Amino acid sequence: MSERNIRVEGIDRLAVEDQEVEIVERKGIGHPDSICDGIAESVSRALSQLYLDRVGKVLHYNTDETQLVAGTAAPAFGGGEVVEPIYILIVGRATKEYEGEKLPVGSTALSAAREYLDENIPELEYGRDVVVDVKLGEGSGDLQDVFGEEEVQVPMANDTSFGVGHAPLTETEKIVLAAERELNGTYAADHPELGPDVKIMGKREGDEIDITVAAAMVDSYIAGFDAYDAAVNRVQEFVTGLAREYTDREVNVEVNTADDYEEGSIYLTTTGTSAEQGDDGSVGRGNRANGLITPNRPMSMEATSGKNPVNHIGKIYNLLSTEIAESVVAEVDGIRDLQVRLLSQIGTPIDHPHVADAQVVTEDGVAVDDIRADVEEIVDRELANVTDVTRSVIDGETTTF
Amino acid sequence: MSERNIRVEGIDRLAVEDQEVEIVERKGIGHPDSICDGIAESVSRALSQLYLDRVGKVLHYNTDETQLVAGTAAPAFGGGEVVEPIYILIVGRATKEYEGEKLPVGSTALSAAREYLDENIPELEYGRDVVVDVKLGEGSGDLQDVFGEEEVQVPMANDTSFGVGHAPLTETEKIVLAAERELNGTYAADHPELGPDVKIMGKREGDEIDITVAAAMVDSYIAGFDAYDAAVNRVQEFVTGLAREYTDREVNVEVNTADDYEEGSIYLTTTGTSAEQGDDGSVGRGNRANGLITPNRPMSMEATSGKNPVNHIGKIYNLLSTEIAESVVAEVDGIRDLQVRLLSQIGTPIDHPHVADAQVVTEDGVAVDDIRADVEEIVDRELANVTDVTRSVIDGETTTF
Amino acid sequence: MSERNIRVEGIDRLAVEDQEVEIVERKGIGHPDSICDGIAESVSRALSQLYLDRVGKVLHYNTDETQLVAGTAAPAFGGGEVVEPIYILIVGRATKEYEGEKLPVGSTALSAAREYLDENIPELEYGRDVVVDVKLGEGSGDLQDVFGEEEVQVPMANDTSFGVGHAPLTETEKIVLAAERELNGTYAADHPELGPDVKIMGKREGDEIDITVAAAMVDSYIAGFDAYDAAVNRVQEFVTGLAREYTDREVNVEVNTADDYEEGSIYLTTTGTSAEQGDDGSVGRGNRANGLITPNRPMSMEATSGKNPVNHIGKIYNLLSTEIAESVVAEVDGIRDLQVRLLSQIGTPIDHPHVADAQVVTEDGVAVDDIRADVEEIVDRELANVTDVTRSVIDGETTTF
Amino acid sequence: MSERNIRVEGIDRLAVEDQEVEIVERKGIGHPDSICDGIAESVSRALSQLYLDRVGKVLHYNTDETQLVAGTAAPAFGGGEVVEPIYILIVGRATKEYEGEKLPVGSTALSAAREYLDENIPELEYGRDVVVDVKLGEGSGDLQDVFGEEEVQVPMANDTSFGVGHAPLTETEKIVLAAERELNGTYAADHPELGPDVKIMGKREGDEIDITVAAAMVDSYIAGFDAYDAAVNRVQEFVTGLAREYTDREVNVEVNTADDYEEGSIYLTTTGTSAEQGDDGSVGRGNRANGLITPNRPMSMEATSGKNPVNHIGKIYNLLSTEIAESVVAEVDGIRDLQVRLLSQIGTPIDHPHVADAQVVTEDGVAVDDIRADVEEIVDRELANVTDVTRSVIDGETTTF
Repeated sequence: MSERNIRVEGIDRLAVEDQEVEIVERKGIGHPDSICDGIAESVSRALSQLYLDRVGKVLHYNTDETQLVAGTAAPAFGGGEVVEPIYILIVGRATKEYEGEKLPVGSTALSAAREYLDENIPELEYGRDVVVDVKLGEGSGDLQDVFGEEEVQVPMANDTSFGVGHAPLTETEKIVLAAERELNGTYAADHPELGPDVKIMGKREGDEIDITVAAAMVDSYIAGFDAYDAAVNRVQEFVTGLAREYTDREVNVEVNTADDYEEGSIYLTTTGTSAEQGDDGSVGRGNRANGLITPNRPMSMEATSGKNPVNHIGKIYNLLSTEIAESVVAEVDGIRDLQVRLLSQIGTPIDHPHVADAQVVTEDGVAVDDIRADVEEIVDRELANVTDVTRSVIDGETTTF
Repeated sequence: MSERNIRVEGIDRLAVEDQEVEIVERKGIGHPDSICDGIAESVSRALSQLYLDRVGKVLHYNTDETQLVAGTAAPAFGGGEVVEPIYILIVGRATKEYEGEKLPVGSTALSAAREYLDENIPELEYGRDVVVDVKLGEGSGDLQDVFGEEEVQVPMANDTSFGVGHAPLTETEKIVLAAERELNGTYAADHPELGPDVKIMGKREGDEIDITVAAAMVDSYIAGFDAYDAAVNRVQEFVTGLAREYTDREVNVEVNTADDYEEGSIYLTTTGTSAEQGDDGSVGRGNRANGLITPNRPMSMEATSGKNPVNHIGKIYNLLSTEIAESVVAEVDGIRDLQVRLLSQIGTPIDHPHVADAQVVTEDGVAVDDIRADVEEIVDRELANVTDVTRSVIDGETTTF
Repeated sequence: MSERNIRVEGIDRLAVEDQEVEIVERKGIGHPDSICDGIAESVSRALSQLYLDRVGKVLHYNTDETQLVAGTAAPAFGGGEVVEPIYILIVGRATKEYEGEKLPVGSTALSAAREYLDENIPELEYGRDVVVDVKLGEGSGDLQDVFGEEEVQVPMANDTSFGVGHAPLTETEKIVLAAERELNGTYAADHPELGPDVKIMGKREGDEIDITVAAAMVDSYIAGFDAYDAAVNRVQEFVTGLAREYTDREVNVEVNTADDYEEGSIYLTTTGTSAEQGDDGSVGRGNRANGLITPNRPMSMEATSGKNPVNHIGKIYNLLSTEIAESVVAEVDGIRDLQVRLLSQIGTPIDHPHVADAQVVTEDGVAVDDIRADVEEIVDRELANVTDVTRSVIDGETTTF
Repeated sequence: MSERNIRVEGIDRLAVEDQEVEIVERKGIGHPDSICDGIAESVSRALSQLYLDRVGKVLHYNTDETQLVAGTAAPAFGGGEVVEPIYILIVGRATKEYEGEKLPVGSTALSAAREYLDENIPELEYGRDVVVDVKLGEGSGDLQDVFGEEEVQVPMANDTSFGVGHAPLTETEKIVLAAERELNGTYAADHPELGPDVKIMGKREGDEIDITVAAAMVDSYIAGFDAYDAAVNRVQEFVTGLAREYTDREVNVEVNTADDYEEGSIYLTTTGTSAEQGDDGSVGRGNRANGLITPNRPMSMEATSGKNPVNHIGKIYNLLSTEIAESVVAEVDGIRDLQVRLLSQIGTPIDHPHVADAQVVTEDGVAVDDIRADVEEIVDRELANVTDVTRSVIDGETTTF
């Protein structure tokens, strides 16, 4: 038996897959809230890397507060323009000096944001369509202490915090997640008229799944109403096809349902994001750490993006609980729904949580006792390797939104 | 039977009160996230009132994006000072002109924020310890249309959105909520050394409730370590006494557990909020619409504070579902746990949700069928009066965080 | 003979009073540029005082860069309103820490600006009609050194800089200066309809003096066109009467000449300053150190307001040269025009300028040689007391714009 | 005889060249004040061009208020870095909509600034070392009217304003102007270690000219103290050689006199401008329209850079008076010093100034009457072509600082 306080038990509810109504949402990478998440996390990675390069360890910082103020745009078939630029303010705390050496945290944050935008919102011209500003203060006295001295060392929890992860994803969750990733991946590569601001809502009632896609079209690739209509239809067909790979249930896909062709009201943008016109955004208001918003499941309110991956328990536990759940489901048969909760204990190493709760809904014919030992072992193993989460986040291998 | 799509059914889980582990949190009104919530909501109320006064109806706006950048302070026994001011940016959309008349949205937002701060964070001197700036843009074309023409008219849902409410609160929830409200209410009136930044975490395991309070003390009322220690103890005793009114379980209260007297590290502030030193904040990152963060229960990710109460479905449904749950529990006996979910249908009046789900855990000896009709009737009645929510929010009678 | 390099000589031109054309301008204290000058100087005084109070000497700072971005207003007879607030950014350098103690430079600057505005632009409501923000950075390495250790010590010049002063003022200069001061003094006290944004232009051709006044009227004290017209006429009569005290020449006063009653285009404001609507401002763009803009005379381009009065040569020499010129003219008879120039020498104490040039136009019958010794003595005395300028500036007894 | 009010007369002073003491200064294009001037003027040109392209005429705008807040840098031999970025705020007024079409003034201003910086301060990396923000409001009601309808039309003066120009430049002036231009031109092309922040002060006493150069060196091209010393010496030799082309007087050139090698205090920068560390800047605080600061000559306080070249009298008259003076001196022999003053008359076309004053110091043997007719004719001709100034400014052929 592990010395860690691991509990494996049956959960007192149906698997989400078996519940009557299920709602799932994902805000695509070009959504204003996701832009903030993405910038916050890329700034975080850049600062971690800066500290590692300069002083050999990650110093205190927290950059989970980016605020985006929408611009004004005048989209037009064939190519419009941004009229008033988007304003993005990077906010947070960072250690600016170490043993007498000044550390370029402000300029590092700025260039990380610029590179992130260039890569992810390519139609947005930096220094014309968007202003990025930065306000990074010093942290509070208590937290300015150095940490992560030797990375193999497991840090102490400095807060009571909570993380929760789930596996496997339901069919609806898989569809919503995959649809956004594919649309913003292979599909967008072939179809530049599709902007990165793709918002996907999935609703399942019994065995009927409705997928609603709001897809920002990029005006320079759209010659007129017919081209727009065709582009919308292509997205509809693509998502429909994709959904069929994940489910045998009835699937109905609708794209840009708010359009009104009569009124000339369509989802046409110049830059591919609604941030260009009227939609503000900020960190932690959109997708949870697993990339989804899932009101049917317990969620942590913690913003994961931008937090320091060395010592922010909320971030680590949200990512780790998800990883544990996925590992368990991948390695242990007979699980229909698994929810892993990690609760920290102030002053205790984070690989020894106050509680590590694995709550399972087993498949028919499988008892919790049949799998308890296997699950416990995996949870134990993953907790022992908690610092891998930190490394993976710094290396950009783990997504946070 | 109502024409509304109301479902009353048993829920497939234990009442939260009966679950093994329960976690609850409340960020007090002086917490940086709550300051942002409070400003966002007070700006919203001020704009609603401005529009009503000037044009007789509420025009389009949304002010749910306030960002706070922490300052720097040098607290000291007997009275320290803020060294670098806190910076608060009010962000959102508002209609700036109506039928040729300019509407003072910027100056109205500013003065609402100033008044809110003066009232709620009294030790923070406006124009010395804090800068408040404002960026309110115009909304997107589609949304700039006027709405709320006649307030008795029920608006159409313009988005697929989701609200969820619960009742009754568990003992732990009641304690957490009451503790913050009482500390920031009667207690603070008598004990000015307690600042408004009070954060309360409740954790129940079985029948043992741990309440952890982080309470910012105001330095000008604290002469030294002894006075500080006494102030902490007073809070501990007060919360312990208060908890006993709500439960017969074992209760353990700890206050400012991170203090280290040896190191001189205590929770002493000049203004009563950690925003003065290192803690940033933003809207929608803290308490949900019912004032709590409850990972054991489904929560909506929507920020409620600052949203337009006339037509923002997420705001209306989060507040209304809570109100429905409370009404049902107040009027119908035999309910141990009730969860009300409202899901909107785009293009349908908001008093006719796509689904209105009342999921109950009944008390022993009570069947769902016994109470179904009563519950349905109350849900139906409350939905019919949906516009009361809007009025109540504008009048400041409903809290949103 | 003094050891100081003082030269007294005849100047190769007519006295300005005797030149054919003379132009003089003064921007009143409510003009956007003057608002910036005033804030910059009040912030400077507050920082000097802060440093003296806390560490016994003035540390390095420079706050001569306030920027004002105009707001939007909707003035109306009987009382209008500011629609979008004015934005003021205090910019500069300041020492933020001394021997381990943090110094509240940001909050001190903010409150100085707030108090200045409250006193000088009383109709402007802080925190509703105006936002004041602050960006004070650290200075460059070389300049961060402490100075002013013992105030009786004369600092070294750290720059080649130039100051110029004149006396006596011409009749036109006296009228322009007195008119603004009286209008914003006794007159405004009795006539609250006159705002502080009064701009006065004087032009003399031969013996004909034209005084043009642009006077912002405050709408809450003006009931309609007739009241406005009467207010304008009152100003015209007041300035005409005042001018007669200074000259026997022909004087013609015009007030608000750009008004067009037919078009309804008049100089009506809500706050008494054009900063409320469309007129931006910044430091050093308006009045010179003697309160006037005088193209007929050599002027220094240095912004005097906001500069550190302990060691900024440009500020000290501009103020001192004016004071020297005034002292000489007050004490020595027979001078029709006097111009005093001080040029610093890097690395030399500032009471020993590279050159101290007193250039005189004598009255008929007086030779330069007749007065040389007297003038030289006064210049020498004033230079010896150079540190009095610093003290007088810190105490707010010397105006800088 | 012209109908224009042109006066040609002798001036009551020595030619500046013949005065005993002369001071001249030029802030190079990389000086913080000049950066602001340059951005303001490039934004102005871009807006003029935008309006011409979109609506066929220049609409109301004014962008003469750019504010720069210095950053923090850590220069080092071989290449240092900017630690906290420079912040630049573009401030002004612009017409944002014309006949229902939105005009991209914000994004146009931003990209003009970015391009200006890229070209002129090449070592400054946009979006890492510098943040550029923009606040362009609408103008005041009266000024929002369109103007420049047909560009051949001469606009009316809307203000009493004053311009002054001089020719020929004195030897000292020529040296100061040429030294900066050559250093930032051919010299910098061959010597990338020299940054654009070159400040040149010329002081002549009798026949002795002292030229003091402050030249920011770029650290990535400087390996160590020896390289730095060599770079400083190269500049010294270059300027000395250049000066000899303009004068037979004794010339003494000093470069970076404030350096202290013992203390390791040298003028080393990462980006080639002191804006990276502690030197703030703003428009209109540096060079006058002719590129120089000349306390020996009357100067206008008006900021020329950033003003609207179609209707801003101050800008037009400062540029035109300089051009007139240069044309006269180029075409008419016998002039030792010429000062041209233009004074506007409100409500009169700007080619008919209230006064056009040409004040000459003739060479020995030449009387004013000998040249009066020629001078008058040239002044008249240039005034008739006043709109050429506007065109030349928009085309970027005229420098303004």
